[in-house]
Amino acid sequence: MSMTSLAWQNLTNPLLATATDPGNSPMILTGVLLSLVVIYVASKLGGELSKALDLPPVLGELVAGVIVGVSALHLLMFPEVGAEASDSVIMTVLQAIGNLSPESVSSIFETQSEVISVLAELGVIILLFEIGLESDLRELQKVGYQAAVVAVVGVVAPFAAGTIGLMFFFNVPAIPAIFAGAALTATSIGITSKVLSELGYLKSREGQIIVGAAVIDDVLGIIVLAVVASLAKTGEVDIVNLIYLMTSASVFLLGSIFLGKFFNKSFVAIAERLQTRGNLVIPAFTFAFLMAFLANAIHLEAILGAFAAGLVLDETDKRKELDKQVIPIADILVPIFFVSVGAKADLGVLNPAIPTNRQGLVIAAFLLVVAIIGKVITGWSVTGKTPINRLAIGVGMIPRGEVGLVFAGIGSASGVLSKPLEAAIIIMVILTTFLAPPFLRLALKNTTEEEDVLESFEEADIAK
Amino acid sequence: MSMTSLAWQNLTNPLLATATDPGNSPMILTGVLLSLVVIYVASKLGGELSKALDLPPVLGELVAGVIVGVSALHLLMFPEVGAEASDSVIMTVLQAIGNLSPESVSSIFETQSEVISVLAELGVIILLFEIGLESDLRELQKVGYQAAVVAVVGVVAPFAAGTIGLMFFFNVPAIPAIFAGAALTATSIGITSKVLSELGYLKSREGQIIVGAAVIDDVLGIIVLAVVASLAKTGEVDIVNLIYLMTSASVFLLGSIFLGKFFNKSFVAIAERLQTRGNLVIPAFTFAFLMAFLANAIHLEAILGAFAAGLVLDETDKRKELDKQVIPIADILVPIFFVSVGAKADLGVLNPAIPTNRQGLVIAAFLLVVAIIGKVITGWSVTGKTPINRLAIGVGMIPRGEVGLVFAGIGSASGVLSKPLEAAIIIMVILTTFLAPPFLRLALKNTTEEEDVLESFEEADIAK
Repeated sequence: MSMTSLAWQNLTNPLLATATDPGNSPMILTGVLLSLVVIYVASKLGGELSKALDLPPVLGELVAGVIVGVSALHLLMFPEVGAEASDSVIMTVLQAIGNLSPESVSSIFETQSEVISVLAELGVIILLFEIGLESDLRELQKVGYQAAVVAVVGVVAPFAAGTIGLMFFFNVPAIPAIFAGAALTATSIGITSKVLSELGYLKSREGQIIVGAAVIDDVLGIIVLAVVASLAKTGEVDIVNLIYLMTSASVFLLGSIFLGKFFNKSFVAIAERLQTRGNLVIPAFTFAFLMAFLANAIHLEAILGAFAAGLVLDETDKRKELDKQVIPIADILVPIFFVSVGAKADLGVLNPAIPTNRQGLVIAAFLLVVAIIGKVITGWSVTGKTPINRLAIGVGMIPRGEVGLVFAGIGSASGVLSKPLEAAIIIMVILTTFLAPPFLRLALKNTTEEEDVLESFEEADIAK
Repeated sequence: MSMTSLAWQNLTNPLLATATDPGNSPMILTGVLLSLVVIYVASKLGGELSKALDLPPVLGELVAGVIVGVSALHLLMFPEVGAEASDSVIMTVLQAIGNLSPESVSSIFETQSEVISVLAELGVIILLFEIGLESDLRELQKVGYQAAVVAVVGVVAPFAAGTIGLMFFFNVPAIPAIFAGAALTATSIGITSKVLSELGYLKSREGQIIVGAAVIDDVLGIIVLAVVASLAKTGEVDIVNLIYLMTSASVFLLGSIFLGKFFNKSFVAIAERLQTRGNLVIPAFTFAFLMAFLANAIHLEAILGAFAAGLVLDETDKRKELDKQVIPIADILVPIFFVSVGAKADLGVLNPAIPTNRQGLVIAAFLLVVAIIGKVITGWSVTGKTPINRLAIGVGMIPRGEVGLVFAGIGSASGVLSKPLEAAIIIMVILTTFLAPPFLRLALKNTTEEEDVLESFEEADIAK
């Protein structure tokens, strides 16, 4: 009998009774599984509908997230939006299945929401890793000077106008104003390049400048985000800190690309020597997560590290094989991010029926105007004498997408964005994305007509 | 100014100050990233070393987990093994990076450990989904009767001997004894089929019976696990409950296979209609997670649902494409499970230098003997008059692997296994896997010699 008491004593060991009751663990998994089913179904319904309407799938995933989240169905809820376990439909289901006490439900709700949030963050890390893998540094160097000018103007103009406008017209404090301004910076390359390729303009000079500038402003946007998010953590705009952050973000990114040239060969050598399953994908993810961790450790954003890791591995011979293997992993993790961003955004704070909401709506309208004008003007920053469709370039830079949502998501997680401001950013992302394709078609129609005119002139010249 | 107070009030809203401090969220992600880096490096080092020694990689991943976990390096620690934040090297690193208070570290430790545990559980769900995808039901029907008899004997004998022995010789209570007995049931198909194919015996009659029986006892093992884990939750062996569980587990599995025949076509139709990324993998994972959730909801194990989902989707035309896409996802999630199982196992409780540990060692030795004898006897259950290498069949069934570790992992998570018993199960899995290949080579050498003798006889006959 002494054996029994010795061997089984830790079943009742008080040390094991931690705050997170281990008895809740199976229900946490149950909650995570149900949440994932909701997320996947929503993301596919939204994505497919969006695609059918000729819009980018990510927009549909975001809107689907809004529908299943705090704004409407209350299926996917998070404590940071002020929700309690009893507000969540999934938690009500779990309570019924497991006969749980309100205290356990509340603790399960918090932990399972944190798990979904971490999965969403891993999703955005993998998204940026994938974007890094797809950004060809050599291609970027070719597009060169004009794209860089367009990109810089397209980052600085909406950032400055947005931040200053929010601070002076709306009395928004500096940090959230900077955050919202930063969210206006990054063009989504996906939608524009799709419209361009549909209309056969992807290889035109306008198309090449737009795509090149979109890639560069993604990079600038990620650096801005790394800086801004760190400012948000300290809570004040300190010039020394600002310089430290901008330097460290740039050095981190350029340094990794530089060191990456040497690391490249070791990576390929390691992947080729490994004999067991995951010989390519495990070293790649180890590197990506390590870089994400290092970026975090020097107080930058994890996604900057993942993006740098993607840029580095893009330069290896294993790129194509790796691309192929990262796709299914991104497919199951990235939608968790977009649906969560939508689910956490309380669009109810912009309901115009409630008078106090109207100021939030005015902010949303202001952000939208700045987002559009701040990019349209970039067309006029193109130098050179060759005639070029400046409007098409500016309009092509309008749609915000993934990176804008990354800003909204991180701003919401860090608590720096108020609910109306977060909702306004999401509305801005949705509307710029909706408006860009018809506008771009219109602007490009001009080019066609101008070119037609030009061609008629030339033909007339030749005929003479 | 009224705008400011309205818009920013929720920054200081006390409702948002939930128990899990949202300010900890970034550090939770940092902790998860660092833990994943440790897990991946350990799993690859262990897996590759194991492979180089001609052992299955999963064994190396498990041993690597033991080394980075509570038994040795204390890199990967979990609250459920009685560890506190200060015991974890990763948490010490985080504390240094983030200048955290001991209270935040403790809360971050718990949440990030829970996240890693859920990732490990998702890993084992995907592992079972993959095993389901790879188990061909039609092939199984061909091997037929003899394999089924071998499988049933190989499940019943070690289960009964293990459970009864633990209860009567070692005074272990019924529930943990049943759990440990159940952990003895399932043969690991991987290692045996590798040795068989190396020696050219995979297509021999012995080989076919071993492989068929291993597949069947995987299925039986998963049903046994679903039943035993549910018993563990209620904490008592109630005959009505037992009948309910065995019935529901069998009905769930057979029912899903049956209904799956109809669902198959809809699944293919859905995957073919979807136009956006993840058109195959998202419906597949939605189905797998939904089945895992449903299994959980009727108080069975999530892995039973995932396994059933895999069996169902294995019958579709999309099987091969799906297989290919699931591989990288499994590659990054499954190692988290095996390394975690190793990391949570405190092999220190079996240190023979400490006198009170010796009883645990005796249990480990007992389990090992039962595990070997319980499978070796299965060879003699083969009926029919054709001469057959009964020893080779029995020895081929010896190695335990994934499913045995799934038992240990789930037993540990549910708190039903004492530390010495959990450590004893893991030692049993490791040693059966180490011992099987040399034993099997020896046993098969007998076949070769017997056949040589037989052939010489026949040749002699013909010569006469």
